[in-house]
Amino acid sequence: MTSRFVLPVRDDVDLVLRERWTAETMHRLAVANIDRLRVWEPWAQGEQTLAALVAFDRLQLLDWVDGRCVPTAIRHRGELVGTISARIDPYHRTAELGYWLDARAEGHGLVTACGAVLRDHLVAAYRVVRLEIRAAVQNRRSRAVAERLGFTHEGTLRAALPVGADRHDIAVYGFVAGSTPDD
Amino acid sequence: MTSRFVLPVRDDVDLVLRERWTAETMHRLAVANIDRLRVWEPWAQGEQTLAALVAFDRLQLLDWVDGRCVPTAIRHRGELVGTISARIDPYHRTAELGYWLDARAEGHGLVTACGAVLRDHLVAAYRVVRLEIRAAVQNRRSRAVAERLGFTHEGTLRAALPVGADRHDIAVYGFVAGSTPDD
Amino acid sequence: MTSRFVLPVRDDVDLVLRERWTAETMHRLAVANIDRLRVWEPWAQGEQTLAALVAFDRLQLLDWVDGRCVPTAIRHRGELVGTISARIDPYHRTAELGYWLDARAEGHGLVTACGAVLRDHLVAAYRVVRLEIRAAVQNRRSRAVAERLGFTHEGTLRAALPVGADRHDIAVYGFVAGSTPDD
Amino acid sequence: MTSRFVLPVRDDVDLVLRERWTAETMHRLAVANIDRLRVWEPWAQGEQTLAALVAFDRLQLLDWVDGRCVPTAIRHRGELVGTISARIDPYHRTAELGYWLDARAEGHGLVTACGAVLRDHLVAAYRVVRLEIRAAVQNRRSRAVAERLGFTHEGTLRAALPVGADRHDIAVYGFVAGSTPDD
Amino acid sequence: MTSRFVLPVRDDVDLVLRERWTAETMHRLAVANIDRLRVWEPWAQGEQTLAALVAFDRLQLLDWVDGRCVPTAIRHRGELVGTISARIDPYHRTAELGYWLDARAEGHGLVTACGAVLRDHLVAAYRVVRLEIRAAVQNRRSRAVAERLGFTHEGTLRAALPVGADRHDIAVYGFVAGSTPDD
Amino acid sequence: MTSRFVLPVRDDVDLVLRERWTAETMHRLAVANIDRLRVWEPWAQGEQTLAALVAFDRLQLLDWVDGRCVPTAIRHRGELVGTISARIDPYHRTAELGYWLDARAEGHGLVTACGAVLRDHLVAAYRVVRLEIRAAVQNRRSRAVAERLGFTHEGTLRAALPVGADRHDIAVYGFVAGSTPDD
Repeated sequence: MTSRFVLPVRDDVDLVLRERWTAETMHRLAVANIDRLRVWEPWAQGEQTLAALVAFDRLQLLDWVDGRCVPTAIRHRGELVGTISARIDPYHRTAELGYWLDARAEGHGLVTACGAVLRDHLVAAYRVVRLEIRAAVQNRRSRAVAERLGFTHEGTLRAALPVGADRHDIAVYGFVAGSTPDD
Repeated sequence: MTSRFVLPVRDDVDLVLRERWTAETMHRLAVANIDRLRVWEPWAQGEQTLAALVAFDRLQLLDWVDGRCVPTAIRHRGELVGTISARIDPYHRTAELGYWLDARAEGHGLVTACGAVLRDHLVAAYRVVRLEIRAAVQNRRSRAVAERLGFTHEGTLRAALPVGADRHDIAVYGFVAGSTPDD
Repeated sequence: MTSRFVLPVRDDVDLVLRERWTAETMHRLAVANIDRLRVWEPWAQGEQTLAALVAFDRLQLLDWVDGRCVPTAIRHRGELVGTISARIDPYHRTAELGYWLDARAEGHGLVTACGAVLRDHLVAAYRVVRLEIRAAVQNRRSRAVAERLGFTHEGTLRAALPVGADRHDIAVYGFVAGSTPDD
Repeated sequence: MTSRFVLPVRDDVDLVLRERWTAETMHRLAVANIDRLRVWEPWAQGEQTLAALVAFDRLQLLDWVDGRCVPTAIRHRGELVGTISARIDPYHRTAELGYWLDARAEGHGLVTACGAVLRDHLVAAYRVVRLEIRAAVQNRRSRAVAERLGFTHEGTLRAALPVGADRHDIAVYGFVAGSTPDD
Repeated sequence: MTSRFVLPVRDDVDLVLRERWTAETMHRLAVANIDRLRVWEPWAQGEQTLAALVAFDRLQLLDWVDGRCVPTAIRHRGELVGTISARIDPYHRTAELGYWLDARAEGHGLVTACGAVLRDHLVAAYRVVRLEIRAAVQNRRSRAVAERLGFTHEGTLRAALPVGADRHDIAVYGFVAGSTPDD
Repeated sequence: MTSRFVLPVRDDVDLVLRERWTAETMHRLAVANIDRLRVWEPWAQGEQTLAALVAFDRLQLLDWVDGRCVPTAIRHRGELVGTISARIDPYHRTAELGYWLDARAEGHGLVTACGAVLRDHLVAAYRVVRLEIRAAVQNRRSRAVAERLGFTHEGTLRAALPVGADRHDIAVYGFVAGSTPDD
């Protein structure tokens, strides 16, 4: 397996930054899962092109350089199977997590394991104090991940998420770091 | 009174874009009200310089050009007395309102009157579907404005707002436009 | 009528900044008047596309943010019917006015009324000392506006304006503000 | 003498682009002639720093790359003694000439000789159709150069040039190229 | 130990990207080793400031995003002890390695171990075909690393490296990847 | 012949900067010589478009403004017949020369004459201390030019130059300026 910069999760799982080399596989996964993704994700409504994904990944990595994003792909037994990323607001020292997984990779607890590592990475390496997960109210799978990661349901934002012609209500989950690392 | 581009509110009140000419007065008002502002506003913690305000105003106006911000000053009987602005997220068609008023201008219903006009401007001119107001839980005055403007308390985000050494819980208020203008 | 930021002119007339929302109508007006515009305007020689107009308007608004342009549309009884704009040279504290009107809106004194308001706005808000209007020597209508606005014919620049395959001589009209606002 | 890219004028005179290496000498000349320059030149009112000149020269050369400027220094017997430059407006195919000379280099016809070469360079290499020289009405020396170069006095713009606390009237001289090179 | 993205080398050694968090330690190491570094490194001649290092690191990471650089710090038993980085020329599919180590960390084979991993990373992940190491002819330690990594001495470039007032001859070492990964 | 900024070489030869006006002719020459150029030049492998050449020339001139490039065309009896350019590394005070000539212009010693002038221009005007010429080992004509210009063969870099599907070894030639101009 080609050597890569990784954030270790467990023996069979690690996180890799979404560098250029991940784009072809992640694009293929997005296309393969597009029907499931379209139910909840605004970005999944339109056509998925590799060029757009490459451009988006590059912007996210540039934000990573400046401490505003941690865009990762989930690698299971050496294969890319999904993504989990964080948008960081350094001004407020908050972050928001987002994730999706290839249908064939579900059932191994991958998102929960990776979410715990990324959550701790954000607190330790970026000194984030509060994390959020936002999920459409009906998206039970995503809400279950938030709960397994120790997040609390703090409120529901009406009509906050446009998905195609509809707008979903969003359940907001919050996590407050127990202690703040010293400066 | 020098002619300016205005959004009319009522006979004695209008909104002006925060162009360069508003900076000196707005800076003077911020300094005069700094003790009150520091209780709730992260940006009010440090020194207030005119140069920083000019730079910030310019960035907000550039965002206004691209439909991502409506930064205004409140003018009462021809004098600038406060500010009410919106950050727009065109991707989600949502916006967030923020405001503060010179202590001497309180008691005239200015923020509520201007907020109603700006709220309707966002819905009509930018086709925003959902608006938010975020206020620290203890900030009764700000929460009262949200309620007078017809916003609903949808949840409370813990530790979301850093103000000096503390972090406040934030009450989130939402407003959903009754109908969406046609494309 | 959707609320907009306006510079009031008279009961039935106001000026609006050429924000994004004005582009479709202004493009339609340009196309409808293209035969008249082509006689005097270099920009009217080629094809008129909405995309080019949107890009041009955006650049003008960015210049407005920095005090180098005031690009406006003329609104008569709530309908956009033409344009009057100023290029500002803050280094020399001079400005140049340009304008055109939909054929169906002529005869109401709109350009003269708006020109007087914009002229005074430039002097009061931007502290411009000298204004210019440049018109092709044969463009009697445009020259008449300059004269009605109190401008003086100061000279004629030979072959200064390329219009299609020809070059027109340009009559330069100047206006010097009687007094300069204090710093 | 160090080899340089030159536009030959006559045996003892050539023009060099105002590259980085010319800045120290041109700065020294500007300082030495500052009292004479301050009478007519807005830029000469403030302090003259080498850093500002280097930055200005660089911007002019970047414009030269894009066909919008020809910034040159006059070299007489191998020594830099003044400057003559053109701003080009490729949209209108017009250009404006400006120049000044070290006091000790006057009386050799340098500006006139260089102006003729630069004028012809603009017409031949940039296909400029109309050139202008603008001089304060009282600046007899500069006006005499315009006349010797075959330019015609076309008008006088009142209060067009701010020089310190005053504003000068400007005499506009025009030159129309006899024939236009083919496309 | 705070979780980080790593390229594993051996049980007690890994490589981390030179993100923002590495700057303080790397700056301290550079200052501590400055006398040794000044003998061979042009960049070590002047004052070492943290701000300059932060800016330089950021530019290198931005280049990493675009596949033109792999800037890493060497971590030994969890402590940063040196650096090894590559400049990549994607047009020619070549790369150049550079490295230095804290004096106290020498003698553990760290540079050689990390160099082998980075060399293979460049070939596998970036499809680099040729690698170079350039060392001053007298820099025996650096040349020994090149030889241990399987590089061949291909020539000596005279006066190629300015170090303070002197210029050193540079020995060029090349490594040609045995096989090229398929497109 | 249209007046241009030139670096004189000999009575029938001069060098001109590769300004916009040279692009059409240089593009025509590149197309006419493409079979010969493809043997040695990576850039010659793909299609040659005028638009790409214009963009490339512009970037090179922008680098020239900042002292990092001297891109010239060779003019023989008033006709453009080839190119000789230098990439400058101001940090190391080194430069690298590259050149090619229209087949019909060979045999007049043009490259050698121009190379000598450009070599001396780099040393005198840019204070370059070391120059390089890199040529594929089998490119006898290019190597002969290097030798006629007084360069020394310092080494051979294996597989350094990708040309189509192959990679050539490169012979590196160096020239060290005898004396450095004073600061």
